[in-house]
Amino acid sequence: MPVNLPAVDPSQLHAVAGVRIGVAMAGVRKANRRDVVLFDLAAGSLAAGVFTKNRFCAAPVQVCREHLAWLQGKPAEAGVRALLINTGNANAGTGEDGLVRARSTCIALARRLDLAPEQVLPFSTGVIMEPLPNDRIEAALPAVIADLRHDGHAWADAAAGIMTTDTVPKAASRRVVIAGKPVHVTGISKGAGMIRPNMATMLGFVATDASVDPAVLQRLAREAADASFNRITVDGDTSTNDSFVLVATGGAGAPRIDSLDGADGRALAEAVTEVAVQLAQAIVRDGEGATKFITVQVDGGRSEDECRLAAYAIAHSPLVKTAFFASDPNLGRILAAVGYAGIDDLDQGLIDLWLDEVHVVHRGGRRPEYREEDGARVMKRAEITVRVHLHRGAASTTVWTCDFSTDYVISTDYVRINADYRS
Amino acid sequence: MPVNLPAVDPSQLHAVAGVRIGVAMAGVRKANRRDVVLFDLAAGSLAAGVFTKNRFCAAPVQVCREHLAWLQGKPAEAGVRALLINTGNANAGTGEDGLVRARSTCIALARRLDLAPEQVLPFSTGVIMEPLPNDRIEAALPAVIADLRHDGHAWADAAAGIMTTDTVPKAASRRVVIAGKPVHVTGISKGAGMIRPNMATMLGFVATDASVDPAVLQRLAREAADASFNRITVDGDTSTNDSFVLVATGGAGAPRIDSLDGADGRALAEAVTEVAVQLAQAIVRDGEGATKFITVQVDGGRSEDECRLAAYAIAHSPLVKTAFFASDPNLGRILAAVGYAGIDDLDQGLIDLWLDEVHVVHRGGRRPEYREEDGARVMKRAEITVRVHLHRGAASTTVWTCDFSTDYVISTDYVRINADYRS
Repeated sequence: MPVNLPAVDPSQLHAVAGVRIGVAMAGVRKANRRDVVLFDLAAGSLAAGVFTKNRFCAAPVQVCREHLAWLQGKPAEAGVRALLINTGNANAGTGEDGLVRARSTCIALARRLDLAPEQVLPFSTGVIMEPLPNDRIEAALPAVIADLRHDGHAWADAAAGIMTTDTVPKAASRRVVIAGKPVHVTGISKGAGMIRPNMATMLGFVATDASVDPAVLQRLAREAADASFNRITVDGDTSTNDSFVLVATGGAGAPRIDSLDGADGRALAEAVTEVAVQLAQAIVRDGEGATKFITVQVDGGRSEDECRLAAYAIAHSPLVKTAFFASDPNLGRILAAVGYAGIDDLDQGLIDLWLDEVHVVHRGGRRPEYREEDGARVMKRAEITVRVHLHRGAASTTVWTCDFSTDYVISTDYVRINADYRS
Repeated sequence: MPVNLPAVDPSQLHAVAGVRIGVAMAGVRKANRRDVVLFDLAAGSLAAGVFTKNRFCAAPVQVCREHLAWLQGKPAEAGVRALLINTGNANAGTGEDGLVRARSTCIALARRLDLAPEQVLPFSTGVIMEPLPNDRIEAALPAVIADLRHDGHAWADAAAGIMTTDTVPKAASRRVVIAGKPVHVTGISKGAGMIRPNMATMLGFVATDASVDPAVLQRLAREAADASFNRITVDGDTSTNDSFVLVATGGAGAPRIDSLDGADGRALAEAVTEVAVQLAQAIVRDGEGATKFITVQVDGGRSEDECRLAAYAIAHSPLVKTAFFASDPNLGRILAAVGYAGIDDLDQGLIDLWLDEVHVVHRGGRRPEYREEDGARVMKRAEITVRVHLHRGAASTTVWTCDFSTDYVISTDYVRINADYRS
C-alpha cells in the first residue's frame, strides 16, 4: 500500500509532441504480461542519460553509454530515435554474451525502423544473471510498433508496462509556456526496492517537446537527477541497471533553449525537476512494505558531501527504519547513525535534532523539555521530516526514504514470490 | 536460535589469576535481573581498550578513554583495578549529565575499594538517551563486591550478567604454557544487533594472567580486535558504546612478554586472538533472527582497505542477507554489492565468485558450467563462505555476518519487546 500516492490519471498526462509509445507482450519471463515498451522519437530528438554508478553495470547500461557516445555531435536528423525497454530480465551479470544480446535487440529494432542501431537505447529490468531472451523481444517488435500512440493513455500504459515489483504505475506531467508556446514535460518511473531485488532497478524516462541545446539538456538531466533520483533510497542497494533518460523532441515549436539561466530555461528546468522529483518520490512511496515517507534533512554541514553522508547514514540504517515502522521515538538511533556517518571530526556536542516540529536533541543531549509523547505523536504520522543540524557550516541536503516494515517482510510473500519467480 | 553456538560450560572456563568477578541486581531498568557486573583486578594489572569509532560515543566510552589516558605511564601499583559494567541503560546521547553520572559510579566504587576513580573503567549498555540511574548502581555496589569470585562459574555468571538482547551467554577460554608456567586467557562478550538496537552494543572483555609490557598489550588488543570484533557485522550499525578491553594481571607468574614476535609472545597472541574471534563470531551466531553464519572472503584486492569495502558491501546488503535467508542462490545481488562498494576503477570483467566449493561467476559473468541447483545446495547450509576474487592485487580480507531473517523480524516481538522495554 503506497504512502500517499494517488493513482495515475491518463487525462492528466500531457502528450509530448514527437513521442509515440507502444506496449506489447513478449513473454520475456512470463506469458500474458506487457513486458516490452517502445518510445518512438521524432527525427531531431535529443537524449541525455544518467546511469547507475555501480561498477558492475548491466549490459544495456553499457550499450546505452556506447550509443549515447556515438550520437554525440551527430547531426539532428541522425539523433536518438527509440528507447526499447523490457521487464522480466535485467541482462546483468551476463558478461560478453549479455552485450551481444542487448545489441541484437537494438539492431533488430533499427532494421524495422530504418535507423542505425546506435539510434536505439536499450533498457532492461528483471532477473539478474540469466541470458536475455532477445529472440522473444525481437519477435514482439511488430506488435509494439503497431501499438504506437501518443496520448496520455499511451503514457499510462507505458508506466504500467515497465512495472516489476511496483504495486502501482508511476507517472507525472507538467505544462509550461515558453515564448507563448505550450511545452509539455511527461515522465514515468519504476522501482520499489528492498526485498525483491532482481526487479528493483530504478528506471526513469522523462520527455519534453521543448527544443534544447544538447549540452544544456545533459546539464538539465544531471541536475534533475541530482535533485530527485539521486536523493532517494529504499534499501541502500544500488542496482546494476538504474537509468534516467531525458528526451527533448523540439516538437512544441518553441524557441530553442540555450541556457538554464534565462527565464525560459528556468521554467523548463523547474518543470523537468518537478516531474523527476515526483517520479522519484513515487518510488519511495511505493517502497517494499513502506508505511511511512521519511524526509531526512541535514543542515549546518561544511559541505553538501558531508551532509549527504549523514543523511544517507540515517536513511540506510535498518535500526532507524524499523524505529519509524514501530512508531518508536527512539532517537538515539538517529544520533548513532550521524556518529558513524564518516564525518571524522564531528563534534557530537553541537548536534541538534528535530522530528517535524519537535526539538528533541540540543548540543548532543536530550532536551529537558522534550517529552516522549511529543516524539511518539510525530512518529505515528505517515510523513515525517527528520532534521539534523550539525552546526559546522552552511551546507544542507535532503534525501527521501521509507520505513522498514516488518509487516511486509514478515509475510512469506518474499520467499514465495521469489520461488515462483525463479522457477 | 543461535547458529552452531554451544552453551557456555563453566568447567571449561579457566580462572584467570588476579581476576575476581561479582554480579548483582541493581534494578537499573527492571527488577530481579542481574544487571551489574564487577571485574576486580589485582594490583599490578594493565588494561588496553579499543572503542567504538562512532563520533557520537556514549559517556562511559568517553570516561574510559579519559581514565586509560590517566593510567598511562602510572606505576604498576596505581594501574587499572576495576571494570564496572551495567546493562539496562547505555548512558548515551545524555550530554554533560551523562559524563557526570558515569564518573559518579566510578567515584563510588573507588571509595569502597580505596582506589582513585581513574582506576575504574565504566561500561554501559541498554536504552539510549535516558539518564543513567547511577544511584541504583551505586546502591548495588556492596552486593556486587560481596559476590566476588574467581572461578569459571563467576565468568559464566558475568557472561549472563552482561546480556541484553542476547539469547545465550558468550564466553571463551584458552590455556597456554609460557616458560613452563600455565597462562590463562578467558573472555566474555555480548551483542546481538539488528532489530533491538538500544541494547545491541557490542562489549568484549578478555583477561589473561600473563604479564605483558603495556605497549605490547595495547598492540595485542588492537590486533586481536582487528582480527575479531572489527570483522563482524550484523546490521551495519555501529553502536555508540562498543568496547573491547584486554586485561593482563601478571598473576600466572610467567615471565613478562615484551614482544609479540618471540615464541612466548606469539603463543599468547594466538590464544588471545582465538578467544576474541570466538567471542566475536558468537555475537554473529546469536544475531537477531540469524539462521545462517556467513563468511565473506574477498581476495585479489590492491589493498586490504578495498577488500574490506567489498566485503562489508556484501555483508551489509539487505538484499544479499535476505537472499541467504531465503536460500535463494541469487548471486547477482553479491555482484551488485561489489559493484557499488566504492572501488572506483573496478573492472567487473575480472571478477570471480564462489559459494563454498561452487564456482559461480568467472570474468564477471555466470559460468556456463554453473547450475542453479549447485548454488541452491550451498545456500541451504547453516554456514556458508562467499568468496570473491577481484584479480587486482594480492590483498585479502574476511568478515563474518549472518543472514537477515524475515522469520524473526516478522513477529510482533520487536514492537512488543520495545513497547515493554520503553514503558
